[in-house]
Amino acid sequence: MSADTPTDRLEAALAAIDDPSGDGKKACLTVWREEARRDAQASTARLAAGTPLSPLDGRIVSIKDLFDIKGEITRAGSKAREEEPPAAADAEAVNRLRRAGAVLIARTNMTELAFSGIGLNPHFGTPGNAHDRSRVPGGSTSGGAISVAAGMAEIALGSDTGGSTRIPPAFNGLCGMKPTQARISRAGVHPLSWSLDTVGTIARNVADLAATDSVLSGEAESGAAILEAGALRLCRLDAVLGECDTEVVEAFEAALGRIRAAGAGITSRPDSWLIEDVRRMNASGGIAAVEAHAANAGLMRDHRGALDPNVSARIAKGAEIPAPDFAAALQTLARLRLESGGIFEACDAVVLPTVPMTAPRIADLADPRAFQNANMRALSLTLLANALDLPAISLPMASTGLPTGLMLFGRRGDDRRLLKMAAALEPLAAAR
Amino acid sequence: MSADTPTDRLEAALAAIDDPSGDGKKACLTVWREEARRDAQASTARLAAGTPLSPLDGRIVSIKDLFDIKGEITRAGSKAREEEPPAAADAEAVNRLRRAGAVLIARTNMTELAFSGIGLNPHFGTPGNAHDRSRVPGGSTSGGAISVAAGMAEIALGSDTGGSTRIPPAFNGLCGMKPTQARISRAGVHPLSWSLDTVGTIARNVADLAATDSVLSGEAESGAAILEAGALRLCRLDAVLGECDTEVVEAFEAALGRIRAAGAGITSRPDSWLIEDVRRMNASGGIAAVEAHAANAGLMRDHRGALDPNVSARIAKGAEIPAPDFAAALQTLARLRLESGGIFEACDAVVLPTVPMTAPRIADLADPRAFQNANMRALSLTLLANALDLPAISLPMASTGLPTGLMLFGRRGDDRRLLKMAAALEPLAAAR
Repeated sequence: MSADTPTDRLEAALAAIDDPSGDGKKACLTVWREEARRDAQASTARLAAGTPLSPLDGRIVSIKDLFDIKGEITRAGSKAREEEPPAAADAEAVNRLRRAGAVLIARTNMTELAFSGIGLNPHFGTPGNAHDRSRVPGGSTSGGAISVAAGMAEIALGSDTGGSTRIPPAFNGLCGMKPTQARISRAGVHPLSWSLDTVGTIARNVADLAATDSVLSGEAESGAAILEAGALRLCRLDAVLGECDTEVVEAFEAALGRIRAAGAGITSRPDSWLIEDVRRMNASGGIAAVEAHAANAGLMRDHRGALDPNVSARIAKGAEIPAPDFAAALQTLARLRLESGGIFEACDAVVLPTVPMTAPRIADLADPRAFQNANMRALSLTLLANALDLPAISLPMASTGLPTGLMLFGRRGDDRRLLKMAAALEPLAAAR
Repeated sequence: MSADTPTDRLEAALAAIDDPSGDGKKACLTVWREEARRDAQASTARLAAGTPLSPLDGRIVSIKDLFDIKGEITRAGSKAREEEPPAAADAEAVNRLRRAGAVLIARTNMTELAFSGIGLNPHFGTPGNAHDRSRVPGGSTSGGAISVAAGMAEIALGSDTGGSTRIPPAFNGLCGMKPTQARISRAGVHPLSWSLDTVGTIARNVADLAATDSVLSGEAESGAAILEAGALRLCRLDAVLGECDTEVVEAFEAALGRIRAAGAGITSRPDSWLIEDVRRMNASGGIAAVEAHAANAGLMRDHRGALDPNVSARIAKGAEIPAPDFAAALQTLARLRLESGGIFEACDAVVLPTVPMTAPRIADLADPRAFQNANMRALSLTLLANALDLPAISLPMASTGLPTGLMLFGRRGDDRRLLKMAAALEPLAAAR
């Protein structure tokens, strides 16, 4: 953390949002200037007095447009939701951040209804990728990632149903985490898919992910044991590499070479593990489409024409699925979750690329079919962790071109240990 | 328990099954004579040596045709399942009964696929009600209840998705229990509805329910504190009495009069509690129909014509429901389960009649509409406990005519305490 005061850092973040050469307006839909200044002042005083409320006291945090903030409308990136009643209370995750002393700066843009991994938003504009503004930011937590990448916030609160706090970090050179579902309350978060939704975090480093996870989950940070990379046993999922672009495979192999050189044990899983089962389950229509239709039934009935067609077309498919097929998919989901624990008997974490490609050009996705293909591909690896309900972290992975991500899957519920592993691997992945 | 040895009691039970004047053939579809005799002998030796395996050692138990028995086909009361492969292993509940020393005597008849509360079975015949063989036995654990009522077994292992181990006891003057779902393993039980299925028990008295629950759940029987009826705070659901036949209401009022006279505190809940919400949720098509369709997809596709039309017609409705409606119903179910705990802040148990009527005549249900009306009515009160995932016990309730039941709902997971309350109320309900 910088030695600057919360007030100093808040002013720098506000300046980044207001920078006319940046995408502040597209990333941050509502900026809570005055309230944030008050909160930063109070935090500055607490830190000066040596009485911080938590390790997050004074940290500048952006909030995805999916979270309830008392008195505001939770638009979920949709203009069609602008006549919803204002939220009666803060979402529980927001409430926990406030109590921890975090300075909430802005409500961030997102894929409409959180239903894509690309991050385009035709209603509020699409913030450009931090490394190449002609490319997508990744989604659905698009504004959250850009807010962190561009210095408009230090930490972004987001949601992750299929990769939404891991794909944007991978595309922008950041860290992102999706927890075990039950560890962090989803109360006050507009649902996309009850079976798959999680509350996730984007930050510049694993230490900030860990501090935020501790505040959100209530599970204490144990400063004690720092894991050495050399003590880790990792399992690579080689079957997925055939689906990845060459530059992603090269970055992945180089990262694993550095990790192996540090002494970690790395084994290969040659079969496709549970991936084919997850894909077959999704092929029958997709749990997310069905639940998204149920969660947005009024919107689909009364305002479908006002929705991004890339989003509404996917949600509409959910209504075509007969209920027994969905019931069977939920049973498959439960079975795969049970079976998924077995892999961790032989390793501490599973490693794979976060996304099989780097961020595509926005101009290349104008055709709906091109968009859907890119979207499915972007989500193809991250969604495994949602289906299997495993905690997952994406780390920036050194590459010759655009940013890529190294992803870790950990044992269900063992999120704190996964964070420690990620901290050990972070410098090796980035080749720092 | 009788002073007779397990072998003596087994022979008496086998004689009851073989009694040509009884319905043994319709209640017990497979009788494990030789294996039961071996088990009873071994048990008799253990009891003589003073080394019983459990309080169930040597008890004669019947098993519903829904439970896997290694090497046998689990027909689920359906001839259309007779080409299924034999079960590779015993169901976990069966396994626990065996390890506890129980003597398994027979596989019992049931409503086909367990999908009705009436108990007719056109394939294997319908065992008549124990008090009037022209009347229905109740379902779906029809054979299980008749096996206990007619002395063919002491305890019946069954399943309860909407009342199947409470309606037959109420119709036949027995005790029946449906546990909190997660307490007793359903592994190896052919599913009807994953969201609602439970493994239940029918017996002649609460002590036998409690002993069986302890073996099945692994939760120890605490012989310690016996509850006094006078210490109980009960809550009546008056809203349901308007739906009940006069003789049921009279029996209920008389039973509560005796319980009040014993000193119990009884309050009335004048509103309909969560009943209207549960019924609205079911009105959209029914969670059980959807899940039954998914669980029996092959049967509905390839053998629908071979199924009881009273059963297949209900299951077929599940396929007409769009998946988002079902997803929304599951969310409602989860919400109602959360909300249902509140009532127990002011009382120890909820009391209501088990079934709003006594057992109808078989001849009166020949018309499919008459059958469906009677079936919906039979299930209308018991299904609340499945929807809300509360433990429930039905006690024989003294009446002037046919048997009726007094039902208790307890706090989720607090099944052992509900069993103690039921033991305290058992003599008062029966006016013994």
